[in-house]
Amino acid sequence: MRNHDRAWDALRQIKVTKDFIGTAEGSVLIECGNTRVVCTATVEEKLPGWLKGKGKGWVTAEYSMLPRATQSRNQREVNKGKPSGRTQEIQRLIGRSLRSVVDLEALGERSIWIDCDVIEADGGTRTASITGGFIALALALKKLVEEGVLPESPINSYVAAVSVGVVDGEARLDLEYEEDSVAEVDMNVIMSDQGEYIEIQGTGEEKPFSKESLNTLLGLAEKGIMELIEIQKQVIEG
Amino acid sequence: MRNHDRAWDALRQIKVTKDFIGTAEGSVLIECGNTRVVCTATVEEKLPGWLKGKGKGWVTAEYSMLPRATQSRNQREVNKGKPSGRTQEIQRLIGRSLRSVVDLEALGERSIWIDCDVIEADGGTRTASITGGFIALALALKKLVEEGVLPESPINSYVAAVSVGVVDGEARLDLEYEEDSVAEVDMNVIMSDQGEYIEIQGTGEEKPFSKESLNTLLGLAEKGIMELIEIQKQVIEG
Amino acid sequence: MRNHDRAWDALRQIKVTKDFIGTAEGSVLIECGNTRVVCTATVEEKLPGWLKGKGKGWVTAEYSMLPRATQSRNQREVNKGKPSGRTQEIQRLIGRSLRSVVDLEALGERSIWIDCDVIEADGGTRTASITGGFIALALALKKLVEEGVLPESPINSYVAAVSVGVVDGEARLDLEYEEDSVAEVDMNVIMSDQGEYIEIQGTGEEKPFSKESLNTLLGLAEKGIMELIEIQKQVIEG
Amino acid sequence: MRNHDRAWDALRQIKVTKDFIGTAEGSVLIECGNTRVVCTATVEEKLPGWLKGKGKGWVTAEYSMLPRATQSRNQREVNKGKPSGRTQEIQRLIGRSLRSVVDLEALGERSIWIDCDVIEADGGTRTASITGGFIALALALKKLVEEGVLPESPINSYVAAVSVGVVDGEARLDLEYEEDSVAEVDMNVIMSDQGEYIEIQGTGEEKPFSKESLNTLLGLAEKGIMELIEIQKQVIEG
Amino acid sequence: MRNHDRAWDALRQIKVTKDFIGTAEGSVLIECGNTRVVCTATVEEKLPGWLKGKGKGWVTAEYSMLPRATQSRNQREVNKGKPSGRTQEIQRLIGRSLRSVVDLEALGERSIWIDCDVIEADGGTRTASITGGFIALALALKKLVEEGVLPESPINSYVAAVSVGVVDGEARLDLEYEEDSVAEVDMNVIMSDQGEYIEIQGTGEEKPFSKESLNTLLGLAEKGIMELIEIQKQVIEG
Amino acid sequence: MRNHDRAWDALRQIKVTKDFIGTAEGSVLIECGNTRVVCTATVEEKLPGWLKGKGKGWVTAEYSMLPRATQSRNQREVNKGKPSGRTQEIQRLIGRSLRSVVDLEALGERSIWIDCDVIEADGGTRTASITGGFIALALALKKLVEEGVLPESPINSYVAAVSVGVVDGEARLDLEYEEDSVAEVDMNVIMSDQGEYIEIQGTGEEKPFSKESLNTLLGLAEKGIMELIEIQKQVIEG
Repeated sequence: MRNHDRAWDALRQIKVTKDFIGTAEGSVLIECGNTRVVCTATVEEKLPGWLKGKGKGWVTAEYSMLPRATQSRNQREVNKGKPSGRTQEIQRLIGRSLRSVVDLEALGERSIWIDCDVIEADGGTRTASITGGFIALALALKKLVEEGVLPESPINSYVAAVSVGVVDGEARLDLEYEEDSVAEVDMNVIMSDQGEYIEIQGTGEEKPFSKESLNTLLGLAEKGIMELIEIQKQVIEG
Repeated sequence: MRNHDRAWDALRQIKVTKDFIGTAEGSVLIECGNTRVVCTATVEEKLPGWLKGKGKGWVTAEYSMLPRATQSRNQREVNKGKPSGRTQEIQRLIGRSLRSVVDLEALGERSIWIDCDVIEADGGTRTASITGGFIALALALKKLVEEGVLPESPINSYVAAVSVGVVDGEARLDLEYEEDSVAEVDMNVIMSDQGEYIEIQGTGEEKPFSKESLNTLLGLAEKGIMELIEIQKQVIEG
Repeated sequence: MRNHDRAWDALRQIKVTKDFIGTAEGSVLIECGNTRVVCTATVEEKLPGWLKGKGKGWVTAEYSMLPRATQSRNQREVNKGKPSGRTQEIQRLIGRSLRSVVDLEALGERSIWIDCDVIEADGGTRTASITGGFIALALALKKLVEEGVLPESPINSYVAAVSVGVVDGEARLDLEYEEDSVAEVDMNVIMSDQGEYIEIQGTGEEKPFSKESLNTLLGLAEKGIMELIEIQKQVIEG
Repeated sequence: MRNHDRAWDALRQIKVTKDFIGTAEGSVLIECGNTRVVCTATVEEKLPGWLKGKGKGWVTAEYSMLPRATQSRNQREVNKGKPSGRTQEIQRLIGRSLRSVVDLEALGERSIWIDCDVIEADGGTRTASITGGFIALALALKKLVEEGVLPESPINSYVAAVSVGVVDGEARLDLEYEEDSVAEVDMNVIMSDQGEYIEIQGTGEEKPFSKESLNTLLGLAEKGIMELIEIQKQVIEG
Repeated sequence: MRNHDRAWDALRQIKVTKDFIGTAEGSVLIECGNTRVVCTATVEEKLPGWLKGKGKGWVTAEYSMLPRATQSRNQREVNKGKPSGRTQEIQRLIGRSLRSVVDLEALGERSIWIDCDVIEADGGTRTASITGGFIALALALKKLVEEGVLPESPINSYVAAVSVGVVDGEARLDLEYEEDSVAEVDMNVIMSDQGEYIEIQGTGEEKPFSKESLNTLLGLAEKGIMELIEIQKQVIEG
Repeated sequence: MRNHDRAWDALRQIKVTKDFIGTAEGSVLIECGNTRVVCTATVEEKLPGWLKGKGKGWVTAEYSMLPRATQSRNQREVNKGKPSGRTQEIQRLIGRSLRSVVDLEALGERSIWIDCDVIEADGGTRTASITGGFIALALALKKLVEEGVLPESPINSYVAAVSVGVVDGEARLDLEYEEDSVAEVDMNVIMSDQGEYIEIQGTGEEKPFSKESLNTLLGLAEKGIMELIEIQKQVIEG
């Protein structure tokens, strides 16, 4: 059995605290089981140099973990002089996923920074960052609409993410760290509320995996994502 | 008048959430008005190379701010390749202050890392980090005593810190950002529960200050620190 | 029509020059159309610190592009002080893919470095690096067997990679740069000779994609990979 | 007894060589016992970007030690890739202290760089840098007045600095390295010629210190600083 | 005897593959025995900031080695964070040598980047880079003339380079690695087709060398360089 | 005419202050006209890792300039994150030159660091560093002999260096900055007291130079170096 008697196709308990950081235009603390991520959205009325004058905006993301987010302490990346390959891979993924559901022309010539800072990590920090980062983004855009800066939100669809994997030969939804570290197959799925794929990243950690595995995992991910999008809707529209 | 009708010699509202980070040996979220800092203490059974074999332990601190802790977003220091001078100055101060009240020989050959991560900043983040970092440290050491690793806590006295300053010609306790940015004199005082100084750093921001100013500010700081130490005692002993 | 009258489900012309670098244990120049990558395999009789004494070996990869591999010159990453996020993502992918088909215990306590240096780039450099890197790896291991260092090659299966995508609404195999830069969906598939997945990375560049698209692209990738594995077999066994 | 039969309230022998570096607008070699610092002042007719167009000038400082300034050789900081925390703390202190006595509006839109390079170190290098740096600054400004660039010197008051401390339970003025390394309390005081404080930094190195200690040390520092300012006056006005 | 029965005053076998990199304005693969260097020339219609508006162009060079160019693998410099001293010394030498034969005013306000990437190294990589880099440069300039961008090539004379040295007391031309590593005197000579010196760098590796040695080595170098320039002419004019 | 009525074949005025830095085993301030360099020699009873256990010692050098050594201020290299190419080239040259006259086996398993810090620069800083660095080295070794650590000095011969060049078509000895910046040919010569070459670096700055120029310049350099070695002898043996 999984921890807390969780079924193979069940998400961990999800909790979202809206407006967690008072200084930011949009923010949440998202908790997926023991994984806890502070997500903020910052609106800046400027653009990176290469985008200026193209009539389009930009959405980008940064990701970090507090040194003691994990069971043993990790050295801060600032003291190594640069973000690790893992950090860069994750923040590129978050940014790409969120950009894919925003109409950048409708956003206008401004940037939105999504910062995802993991304060406690128990597996699935990148997918929690996407799910929570989307809420922070949507809240910040809602504010721009309320302030009359934008006529309507430039978001085309909801987006959420979840990890799935094969552990002990069994497909499972929303892996916690203990499961993730022994998974035979590990997959992150990012999906819109129309059930279309935004990104799929699947890896056979120890050995290749079959088409059947792939299909089972994709179905499981879809179930979890639809539940997450329900929660997002309650927070954003509530 | 100060914000929230605060008197010139009053602290902001202080709130301490114990065990805020489940993975750490000791942790708090300390909130001083809108300044909010996550402090964790990590016990490591190893020492930096230059301390090995001397029969003593080590206490050190690191400090950082989330990019959106402030009213406008700051670039992450990891992307500049190194901690700023300000960050290094602050983390050296926190480490020095906490070491001064720990009997390093009684601690034994182990290290304690204090991580202070500011999630929201409104002035006084370095003093809040010392006050909160001390609680995290004390909680981690209490745990080592409970686990039988240490016979008793190697802490010699409580330590807390507060900022004081002169604003519009008036001495004030516990400056928030709005006051700090226009202060004529700015002083950080770190003190033990016996009313002795651990560190004093006073700066005439625009012009020199007199001995009278110095004495008024030191008295004001002592009042605030004694109140903070009362709160620390309730959290640690409670 | 595609360049060179290529069909939607056809690979570009593939050319493999064996033993291209005389100093290395295994090496090829792999050319996929205008994409040209020098791949070398280096055997080192030592291990990274964290792997020592576990009775296992290690396979890792590094990736780089010559500054003038592309139509306009790119600054060398050494002058920026660190590999870009893209470079790190690619070299982590190559390493993970090759490790998944090697029995690390049978390899013994030694490391194999796969270096993939792109001398000319026209799309698909990461998949060409995996396909060519596998050949370099297999040649180096074959040499270890011939020298009597290993009783048999620790490779479990062949592995090759290809990109597929949707361009102008049409699924296509093995995108060149001109197609890749306007693709609506972009996917890299890494597969074994048993037709099992080692890694799948699919991205909806501009908008989400449907399950039907996913299935079409996966079929197309499989066709291309099986052709690439035929070529690998001729080079390695020839 | 202290080295050279020095009394507890006596400065070390001070020697100032004016115009030590022929290329600089202002320069001295300041020697406080065996501590020797080359201080230069550079006038630049440009400003850092964030200060442009505000009708004000800027004074900033940099500090370094030659590798063999100390009894054993230290690695150059350039080979570690960045200035240490200690270096940054010191150069921020020097800059802040000198800025506090300059009327930046009267200085006009230009920068003055104070470079303090320690060629031999025997305690008190940061205070010697401030005392010597002030002379270099004053000489450079005097030259601007003589050249008719400025109508009068924008310096409001003299500033000098000294260290004081408690060694073996006894308060002492102007610690040399041997004393500094075993001091129980260590304090740097920076003061104007009107006897007002510009900066106070006091640290209980091993344990907290009392209000009585603080008062004794502040008095001792004032005595030393007034003597240093006499020497500064002779060099600058002489 | 030398390898391959080479005479003391003979070059290794030289092979030049023209237009080796299809994306570049000029390129060659130059092979001097087992030393193989890819040289490309890139024309950029912009200048470094300090050269703008002076009516002159710029020629600069960069040099690198693939990690497995040598018998054992070298760490990539990008992973050390900066080019080594050796790399910088070599690329400054290549740039200086090529600039000395180009009329920078006739080149006009544009930059030419020469990239020399060693894919296999067996001694003499810096001289092969100069000899090959000159060909790439000349080809790119020829193209500018053919396109009507320049009325005629701004090259004043041919330039080639070779290493000479004393091995076992004997002067030798064009050292391979095995000889270079035990040479008593090591000299790189860069010369124009008029037999004039562009740069001479001679080092007594173990002990000083006499004027007689110097003269013998300079004569030997001239012989080799004149043969190399013949080959350059065939490639460029052919 | 040259500055100070200097003849074409005359050195600038040379002044050497012995034991300039009290903390170092050997030290001088060497002044060649307005070029002034502090040179120290540090003896360390340890070796770099790659030299351990080979029965040999090591001599290495580092070079730096104070920011205001020149007419206008240069940014400190520590703030650029690494030594420049020029700095690395110079310190490699100094180290190589000094090593060539030391019997490293007779030195035994210890390192000597030569630090050359330019406090004022007016051309010829690298040659002054070699000439002065040799004196510091010889003084430190003399001390090791006097202390009985070494039976005799492991120095085989004296070494000094000078720059020569062609300015306005005229060969000149010991260029100052004003001459160096317009020289047509620029050469640094490093020579032993037996009149043998240790290193020659000659560059045609604007155009190639003839064999006649080379011979004239080498003769001029020899004259200057023999005078410098006379001065070295007086300081070291005096």
